[in-house]
Amino acid sequence: MTSKPAAATAGVQIRALIDDWANAIRAKDVNGVIAHYAADSVTFDLAPPLISTRADAKGLQAWFATWRGGLGYEISDLTIFAGADAAFCHSLTRLSGTMTDGEKGDVWFRLTLCFRKVGGEWKIAHQHESVPFHMDGSYRAAVDLKP
Amino acid sequence: MTSKPAAATAGVQIRALIDDWANAIRAKDVNGVIAHYAADSVTFDLAPPLISTRADAKGLQAWFATWRGGLGYEISDLTIFAGADAAFCHSLTRLSGTMTDGEKGDVWFRLTLCFRKVGGEWKIAHQHESVPFHMDGSYRAAVDLKP
Repeated sequence: MTSKPAAATAGVQIRALIDDWANAIRAKDVNGVIAHYAADSVTFDLAPPLISTRADAKGLQAWFATWRGGLGYEISDLTIFAGADAAFCHSLTRLSGTMTDGEKGDVWFRLTLCFRKVGGEWKIAHQHESVPFHMDGSYRAAVDLKP
Repeated sequence: MTSKPAAATAGVQIRALIDDWANAIRAKDVNGVIAHYAADSVTFDLAPPLISTRADAKGLQAWFATWRGGLGYEISDLTIFAGADAAFCHSLTRLSGTMTDGEKGDVWFRLTLCFRKVGGEWKIAHQHESVPFHMDGSYRAAVDLKP
């Protein structure tokens, strides 16, 4: 058996968590998503308010219910930095799908996830999702940018 | 001499870094701000593009030059989680001031900072700033929210 540096092991664990979490989002598996959050996790979401939480089955279920079938959730430009007891990653993420009213949704946004160990297991302690906005006086959210 | 747990010490160091960094922003001290970033730091800014960096004196100087006098930079709801070699914090932050054309700027946004140790010193490895946007079809950035 080869022993690995703690950071390398943590990086592999964080990567596996992200894969599992993203697969649960694609399948709209509420419990599979929620399981990865610390109970006091803080989310900065694409939609108002300023602060919310994803560790909330009802809110996530309601959001999933606005989509028909599965979701596209593509993670690009992923960078992970994993320490011994805290970790973070950032990426550009593409959410796509069809709303229940038939409208297509397709947006690239910036995703930051921060992790800490809870009872020896990595959990998402903080999530920040956003698109920038145009500073031309229009205050339009830049929902049409691509990496 | 009393020895402190690593996490407590790291928390104090991160807090001091944030205070110093925020004071440099208020004073529009380009070098004082830049000094706190890792060379490969990645920023998700309020304005497009999707990805940029703050470890760039020219860009920061140009942005500071759009403001008359000092800047208001109030950090509220700050939560810090500091590990031994990685750390992160999130807060609601109010940026205010007067533009060179006389227009007043005053916006609350979400701020996430992620830190790692570079040569034994804490540096900002990732910064994510945003406001959410209205999901009512207008795609207006929610620049008028308050904590």
